[in-house]
Amino acid sequence: MVIVGGGFGGLQAARKLARQSVDLTLIDRRNFHLFQPLVYQVATGALSPAEVAYPLRHVFRRNGNVKIVLAEVSDVLLDARKVMLRPVAGERAPAFVAYDTLIVAAGSRYSYFGHDRWQHDAENPKTLEGALSIRRRILEAFEAAELEPDAQQRASWLAFVIVGAGPTGVEMAGQIAEIARDLRADFRSVDSSSARILLIEAGDRVLAAFPPSLSAKTLRSLSRLGVTTMLDRTVAGLDDRSVTLARANGPSERIAARTVIWAAGVVASDLAGVLAERAELSVDRAGRVEVLEDLSLPGHPEVLVIGDMIRVRWPDGTSTALPGLAPVAMQQGRHAARSVRRQLRGRSLRPFRYRDEGNLATLGRTSAVAEIKNIRLSGLFAWVTWLTVHLLYLIGFENRVLVLIRWAFSFIAHGRGARLITGNLEPTTVDTGSDSLPVAWPRPDSRREHAA
Amino acid sequence: MVIVGGGFGGLQAARKLARQSVDLTLIDRRNFHLFQPLVYQVATGALSPAEVAYPLRHVFRRNGNVKIVLAEVSDVLLDARKVMLRPVAGERAPAFVAYDTLIVAAGSRYSYFGHDRWQHDAENPKTLEGALSIRRRILEAFEAAELEPDAQQRASWLAFVIVGAGPTGVEMAGQIAEIARDLRADFRSVDSSSARILLIEAGDRVLAAFPPSLSAKTLRSLSRLGVTTMLDRTVAGLDDRSVTLARANGPSERIAARTVIWAAGVVASDLAGVLAERAELSVDRAGRVEVLEDLSLPGHPEVLVIGDMIRVRWPDGTSTALPGLAPVAMQQGRHAARSVRRQLRGRSLRPFRYRDEGNLATLGRTSAVAEIKNIRLSGLFAWVTWLTVHLLYLIGFENRVLVLIRWAFSFIAHGRGARLITGNLEPTTVDTGSDSLPVAWPRPDSRREHAA
Repeated sequence: MVIVGGGFGGLQAARKLARQSVDLTLIDRRNFHLFQPLVYQVATGALSPAEVAYPLRHVFRRNGNVKIVLAEVSDVLLDARKVMLRPVAGERAPAFVAYDTLIVAAGSRYSYFGHDRWQHDAENPKTLEGALSIRRRILEAFEAAELEPDAQQRASWLAFVIVGAGPTGVEMAGQIAEIARDLRADFRSVDSSSARILLIEAGDRVLAAFPPSLSAKTLRSLSRLGVTTMLDRTVAGLDDRSVTLARANGPSERIAARTVIWAAGVVASDLAGVLAERAELSVDRAGRVEVLEDLSLPGHPEVLVIGDMIRVRWPDGTSTALPGLAPVAMQQGRHAARSVRRQLRGRSLRPFRYRDEGNLATLGRTSAVAEIKNIRLSGLFAWVTWLTVHLLYLIGFENRVLVLIRWAFSFIAHGRGARLITGNLEPTTVDTGSDSLPVAWPRPDSRREHAA
Repeated sequence: MVIVGGGFGGLQAARKLARQSVDLTLIDRRNFHLFQPLVYQVATGALSPAEVAYPLRHVFRRNGNVKIVLAEVSDVLLDARKVMLRPVAGERAPAFVAYDTLIVAAGSRYSYFGHDRWQHDAENPKTLEGALSIRRRILEAFEAAELEPDAQQRASWLAFVIVGAGPTGVEMAGQIAEIARDLRADFRSVDSSSARILLIEAGDRVLAAFPPSLSAKTLRSLSRLGVTTMLDRTVAGLDDRSVTLARANGPSERIAARTVIWAAGVVASDLAGVLAERAELSVDRAGRVEVLEDLSLPGHPEVLVIGDMIRVRWPDGTSTALPGLAPVAMQQGRHAARSVRRQLRGRSLRPFRYRDEGNLATLGRTSAVAEIKNIRLSGLFAWVTWLTVHLLYLIGFENRVLVLIRWAFSFIAHGRGARLITGNLEPTTVDTGSDSLPVAWPRPDSRREHAA
C-alpha cells in the first residue's frame, strides 16, 4: 500500500501500519517530518531547523517493510490504481507506483487569495525555507534601520506587519515584539524596542477558533507585549515598502512597512483538486475534496484522504471541514490505519469521530492561552501546558532534549541562539578604484571616530 | 578605530580592544562569527548552522563602545584613512567609514585554480551556505541511488570525490564514509555502505602540514574507514557527472561521480589585493599581501593586517606565510590589539612571534591525529584532545553544551540529527491529465505491492 505525505496524518498512519505485515511505500517531497506548530520559532531565531524536523528514513530505519520515496505526487490514476510521481533527487523522470490501498495526506499551504506574487514580499512560515527567509528579513530589517539616516525610512524598517491572527500569526507577533526588546542592547544607533508590530486580522477577533473570552485575554496580552492588533481589515495590496489595508466601513489605509509576514488562510494541497477531478467531485472554496464519513473517497473505498485537505460529508448531506490542527490529522491517520486493517480482514469501514483535544497558543515568553475540554487556561500555567504538549509531541528524543535546553537558555539569557542571517550571501567581487562615491558615512548619531 | 572581519583574528582583536576606552567599529558581511574548524560537520549533517556560528552583536552587547556594521568592504583609501563599504541590508548605497587605526582581518576563500565555474559542481565548505549545499548533495545522492535502476548510474550516485587532503578534506572523507555506513538501515533498494569515497590530493601525502609519520597513520585510518586516497593527482576537469584527474607520470583518469566536494587550496580575500594595490605592493601566488614583522602594512603603521591574507616579510628579505589556522589568526588578533594600545601610549610596534600550538584533525567518529609541541598523538586520546580543544574554543556557552549533547547522541545512536535536505524546494505545481508516461515503476528490486 501507498501513503502520500509524511506530515502528522501520514506519519501516524505509516507508523501504525509499519507494525503490520504490510508492504508500505511512503512518498514525500521532503526527507523529513516537519513539526509544523513550532516552525514559527525557526522564523524568529529561537530554534534551528533540525530541532523541528526529523528525517523520515530514520523513523522507519527498523521497518524493513517500509520504503520511502522522495518524490512529488502529481496525479492519482484511480481506475488503474497508480500514483504518478516525479522524484525530487536524481534524474527526475516521472514514474508510477501501484497501490491496492492508498492514503493521501498531502496537507495544505498558505493562500494569498489569488495574489500568489504577494509571497515575494510577504513570506509565510509553512516551510523551513519560508521560516529561514522570514528570519533573515526580520534580522536584516534591524540591521538596515541601524544604518538608515532618514527617520521616516528607519520607521518603515522597524515596522513589522503580520497578516492573520490565528495561532501562528499571534505567536509570531508576540515573538517579534520580544525580539525587538531582546535586541535593544545589540544596536547603537537605533532603539530596536521602538519597533511597531502590527497584527492584521480580517475577522472581528483574534484566535477565532478559541472561545471569545480567550480571544479578549489574548488581545490584552498582545497589547501588553507591544503588539498593535488591527481587526476587520483585509490586505488590498502589498509590495516591498508598504501594505494597503481595506475596511468594510472606512477608507483604506497604507502602512509603510518593509517586513510583512503572511499567516492568513490556507488552501488544500493541489492533490485534493486532482482527486476531485479524477473522482468527478467538486472542491470547496479552500480547495478541499469531500470524502465520506469513513474518510474514503466516494466510490473508492481503497482511497482514504486525511488531514486538512478534506471536508467530511455526513449522511444528512451537510459537510464539515475540521480545523487544520495536528491532533485532527493524527486522529485521522490512526483511523485510516485501523480502516486498512479492517479491510484486510474483509470488514467494512467505520465512520471517523473527532475527539476535540483542545486549542493552544503561546503569547510571548511565558504566557499562553489554552482551551482543553471546556477548561480555559491562560498565563503561565497555560504556557507550561503548551510546553509539555509540544515537547511530548516532538517525534525524536534527541530533539526534545535539545529544544528544552535551547528554550531554557533563551529564557534565562533572553538571547536567541539561532539568530543567524543566512541564505543571501553576496559574491565576493570587489569594486576597486572608484573614489567618486558619497563621501560622508551617514549615521543617525554619528560619533566621531577616534582611538583614544 | 575600525576592524574589518569578525573571524578568529578580527574577533580576538575586537574583544581585547572592547575593554579599552576606544570607539570601535567592527565591519563584517555576516552577522555572525563562524567557527570554521567545525563547518564541515554542518556539511555532513552532524551539526546545525546555529551550533557553529555566534551572532556578533551578541558578543558585544555589553560594550557600548563597539558598533557593528553589516557591510562588505570594497576598498581602503589609505591616504584619506577611510574604508569604502556597501551595506548588506537595506538600500545598500556605498558609504565610507573613517579610521585612525585599521585592523584588516578578511581571511581567505577556496581557490578553484582559475576554474571558478567548477564551484557549481564542486561546492566547498567555507561558508554555511556551502556546507548546507554539500549536505543536500550528499543526502540527495543516496536518494537518487535508491531510485536508480541502472547499476552503472547507481554507482556514480554512490561515488563521492573529495578534492584536497588537508584537515578539512580528510575530515570530510572520514565523515562521509561513516554516513554511508550509518545510513545502511535507512534504504531498501540500495546498500549505502557500498558507496565509494575518493580523496584526491595533488601532493604525495595527506595532511602535508603534519609530520610524515602522522600522515602515514592517517592514510591507514582512512583506508580502514573505507576511503580510497589517490595521491599525486590534480583535477584537470569536472562537471556534474565526472571528475578528470591528471598525473605527472601516466594517463589521465576519468571518475564517474555525481558528488564532488572541494577542499583544495585557498586564496586570500580580495581585500589583500586591494591593500597591495593601494600601498603599491605585490601579492604572492595565493593573493596574500606582504606586511612587516609587526603586521603593519609597509609605510602605514596605522594599518595592521592579520590572519591568512598576509605573508610576513622579515628584515633579512625573506618572507613566510603562516598556516591558515585559527590559533595563528587569534595570536595575531591579540598582537594587533596590543599594538594599538602601544600606539595609543606613543610607543613603537613590536614584531609578532608565532607560538606553534600544534595541529589537530579527526578521522571518523572516535579517532584523530594531533601534533602538539613535538608530541604526536593518534587514536582515541588524540580525539579526546581534539574534542576538548574545539569545545573550549566555541565562543558561546550555549553552543558548547548543545554541540556536546548532539555529539553524544550522534555517538550513541549512530544517527545524524541534522540530516535535513533543505534549500531546493520544488514549486507545488501539479501536472494533471498526462497519462502517456512510462508505465512501469523502475526499481532495482521491485517488490510487488500488496497489502496482506
